[in-house]
Amino acid sequence: MSNERLIYLPLGGAGEIGMNAYVYGYGKPGQERLILVDLGVAFPDMDTTPGVDLIFADISWLEKNRDRLEAVVVTHAHEDHVGAVGHLYHRLGQPKIYTRAFTANIARHKLNEYGVGPEAVTTVSAWPETVKLGPFTLGFLPISHSIPESSGLVIDTPAGRVLHTGDFKLDRSPLVGEAWDPDLWAEVAKPGVKALVCDSTNVFSPNPGRSEVEVGPEVEKLVAEAKNMVVATTFASNVARVRTLAEAGERAGRSICLLGRAMRRMVEASIETGVLASFPKVVSPEEAREIPRESLMMIVTGSQGERRAASAQLARGKHHGISLQEGDLFLFSSKTIPGNEKGVIAIMNQLSELGVDVVDDSNGRYHVSGHANRPDLETMHQITQPQMVIPMHGEHRHLREHAKIAMAAGRSAEVCVNGMMLDLSGNAPKVVEHIETGRTYLDGSVQIGFLDGIVRDRIRMALNGHVTVTAVLDEQDEPLGDPWCDLMGLPETGRSKAPLSDVLEGDLSQFLGRADAKTLRDDDKLEEALRRVVRNTANDEIGKKPEVTVVVSRLTS
Amino acid sequence: MSNERLIYLPLGGAGEIGMNAYVYGYGKPGQERLILVDLGVAFPDMDTTPGVDLIFADISWLEKNRDRLEAVVVTHAHEDHVGAVGHLYHRLGQPKIYTRAFTANIARHKLNEYGVGPEAVTTVSAWPETVKLGPFTLGFLPISHSIPESSGLVIDTPAGRVLHTGDFKLDRSPLVGEAWDPDLWAEVAKPGVKALVCDSTNVFSPNPGRSEVEVGPEVEKLVAEAKNMVVATTFASNVARVRTLAEAGERAGRSICLLGRAMRRMVEASIETGVLASFPKVVSPEEAREIPRESLMMIVTGSQGERRAASAQLARGKHHGISLQEGDLFLFSSKTIPGNEKGVIAIMNQLSELGVDVVDDSNGRYHVSGHANRPDLETMHQITQPQMVIPMHGEHRHLREHAKIAMAAGRSAEVCVNGMMLDLSGNAPKVVEHIETGRTYLDGSVQIGFLDGIVRDRIRMALNGHVTVTAVLDEQDEPLGDPWCDLMGLPETGRSKAPLSDVLEGDLSQFLGRADAKTLRDDDKLEEALRRVVRNTANDEIGKKPEVTVVVSRLTS
Repeated sequence: MSNERLIYLPLGGAGEIGMNAYVYGYGKPGQERLILVDLGVAFPDMDTTPGVDLIFADISWLEKNRDRLEAVVVTHAHEDHVGAVGHLYHRLGQPKIYTRAFTANIARHKLNEYGVGPEAVTTVSAWPETVKLGPFTLGFLPISHSIPESSGLVIDTPAGRVLHTGDFKLDRSPLVGEAWDPDLWAEVAKPGVKALVCDSTNVFSPNPGRSEVEVGPEVEKLVAEAKNMVVATTFASNVARVRTLAEAGERAGRSICLLGRAMRRMVEASIETGVLASFPKVVSPEEAREIPRESLMMIVTGSQGERRAASAQLARGKHHGISLQEGDLFLFSSKTIPGNEKGVIAIMNQLSELGVDVVDDSNGRYHVSGHANRPDLETMHQITQPQMVIPMHGEHRHLREHAKIAMAAGRSAEVCVNGMMLDLSGNAPKVVEHIETGRTYLDGSVQIGFLDGIVRDRIRMALNGHVTVTAVLDEQDEPLGDPWCDLMGLPETGRSKAPLSDVLEGDLSQFLGRADAKTLRDDDKLEEALRRVVRNTANDEIGKKPEVTVVVSRLTS
Repeated sequence: MSNERLIYLPLGGAGEIGMNAYVYGYGKPGQERLILVDLGVAFPDMDTTPGVDLIFADISWLEKNRDRLEAVVVTHAHEDHVGAVGHLYHRLGQPKIYTRAFTANIARHKLNEYGVGPEAVTTVSAWPETVKLGPFTLGFLPISHSIPESSGLVIDTPAGRVLHTGDFKLDRSPLVGEAWDPDLWAEVAKPGVKALVCDSTNVFSPNPGRSEVEVGPEVEKLVAEAKNMVVATTFASNVARVRTLAEAGERAGRSICLLGRAMRRMVEASIETGVLASFPKVVSPEEAREIPRESLMMIVTGSQGERRAASAQLARGKHHGISLQEGDLFLFSSKTIPGNEKGVIAIMNQLSELGVDVVDDSNGRYHVSGHANRPDLETMHQITQPQMVIPMHGEHRHLREHAKIAMAAGRSAEVCVNGMMLDLSGNAPKVVEHIETGRTYLDGSVQIGFLDGIVRDRIRMALNGHVTVTAVLDEQDEPLGDPWCDLMGLPETGRSKAPLSDVLEGDLSQFLGRADAKTLRDDDKLEEALRRVVRNTANDEIGKKPEVTVVVSRLTS
């Protein structure tokens, strides 16, 4: 027994917020039986990942060891926790997936897109129900978050009990889903907690978190006072908030219309799985068009400024035959995630141009966070009294700050980022291995590695433009006619006021005229030389060195 | 006289924050004599302007009417107000430039890069000194902001007095530069103010603005308690803040080292022009290397996460032989401008990896804004009692909110965005014309228009990748050999697991083999057809339609 160990290995989500993927293992070193907790996505941006559709954790290590994988366990249905189950299902050898009913509903839809049937997901009821997964006995411990049925995990192993919090906040009135129940968590912790693996997102928020229930009265007042159409946006998955918004509209005598696929999907899943017993009657967009605007409230997707979502579409003009106008009210019942500011602000300005009054959450009245703040994390540590704290779900700065808090209270802790394998068997976490890890991009329909250079080349074209150079050589390796250039993403003229392509072609032609036979014969040398001519001449003309594709056509007899 | 008019025409800065350029004119319609207030830049981003170096207002209208331009007047030395004076100087017909001494120092350096001598800028002392510019008599009215010698403008015209606030806050203790003097502004307003053209940046900040003087004690306390090296970053142009930081270091017995060209330039300009009478003694980076880290404080550029600035370089590793380590303190004495969050956060995480403790301004202790908040704007309106308020320096939402405030107090106001020409001669502003306007990009060394399609093509390449197709046709317009493809920014293999270029070449070859003579003869048709083959096949293989350059080489005898 003593040569077996309990390991923890984050592949995603530790050192970033997004694409969560945490491996636990138990057994002899190198032969541990494994479970994977969560399998989410992260979202691309133009700065670092132009053209990419989704970002996954690099699961190569797990793929290589998939015969040791007992199951995938999903804590809740946010995209950064469940978003990749369909995309990576086959690479992981079609593992069993365990989760609770609401999350299962969402996961099954994702798997269905890959032709995987609903039986791939096993629904587990809340603690005290457990499932046995190899050496692990696992239970789903209800906890409040900004989505229904979020769960912490009780992971029992021969080395002791691990509590994996999942995303959470300490909300005693979350409105939808189970409330934070400190007694339940204390009871589960009673036998002793080896390790608390704990959400770190809001570690820099100094005040105790606020309850979902606080939002309702504020929204109700706002909607009651509104004179014209009201539109509200929030995360579709925040079903409690969506219902709060809808009920505020209903109380103000308004018809409710949901816009956006995700919004309808989430409400539907909530009703199907019973997490939502009631929801105000909704009207379709077609019906909404016939309703006087002062009697209408729309709840729409796109709180993060996503270009294709309903908020952006409404801001740009007519959407589903509905358009906003002077005196309408638009409420962002949401926080803008860092990186999304410009998109959200663009929408606010478009709405302003339409004369729409925008209310956002700058003062915290119309939104509360779904994550535990610093004092809440301290409460969680105190209630569960873990031997060690392993911060997760955070950027490096969050993990480090969270570890500091734990250590200040005399607990052992470790800043463990993606690829670091910890042995949790002893009295303190011990780094035992570093796994090669990274990111996988879903690019169109293809999964590519972040180090493949593909995205790097695209960024270079975006920064520098592109020139195609074509040169034709005859059977004697002599230039046949003049080389020519096709430009893309470059100005037509530069310093000398002549067309840039003419100037480039002139210099290329001159170069070819003088090039020695050795260069002309050697494809690599010739290409490199032509590339250099283009880059130097362009730099001189337009102050930029473009990316260059050189095509040498050789006529052969 | 009655057929003359006073016009206001923003070309930049109204409908965005950045690239300020406001035209005033007086005279017969179409023959007004003009002045331009400010000529700034905006900064590019990957989302909308990859590869662009700087963004200017589109000054085409002013260039066309440059014989009517009396002068360019600059309110203060921030880049969004003075940044384009060098780049656009010649297009505007080498106009006279008027400003105060500190701003003149900065402007002259910018003009010098374009070979323009210092005499291009005329230094004007503060109000009551005035200059006569055609029909305008203009004075520089001191006002507090986050840079020395910021000025409002008193613009006297035959149609009345206009007050153009420039950027401002109501700070009675700005530490460097003149304090806000309500008596002075009230006195200037006494004869009656036709129009107040007014900064709108912070209109959504509900509480009165805070004074620069509040930052000092907080910084001092923080630095005094620091155990190891201290690094602080802020805007280099915020000379008062830079001195506050330096003095806090000095009082804690630390040597001060400035890192970053802009930081040294701004302190130098302040001393040269006398706006800064004293500054703690600084050491060079070389000297700093020899000083024990607990006795050193560095003040560095890069508070907005700029990749090449000192903050980013220090976060990545050694810079000027200095590197940060466990237990050092890094202070962001700044606010992150929307859009820069990811860059700033990346630096914070890199610092966290080094073990550096990062203090930012999340609670407002180490930074105050340079702009007037909502109550301050109301104060400005009350003191100056203008007939009309024209909000400027803001996005559409800021301008609209600001106009609402003015109208709520019974004043006339107009949301006037770039390209709208207002006639201010009457009792209320009147829109008289819309000027075609937009943005000019400095791209390398070339100025291009934002609608030229150049940047659009680059964005497309970044999103979709690029394929070069080459086909050679003989004298009879018959394909000579097979066509081939060069890929850039695309995955090597797709659905069929064969190399993507092979699959594309196969389909292209097949197409050429079947193409009729008419298509083969017609360059445009052939190119379009080959492009379509590539896009369709790629979409099938990799779920992406690349940008395509088709090169058809025709052998001629």
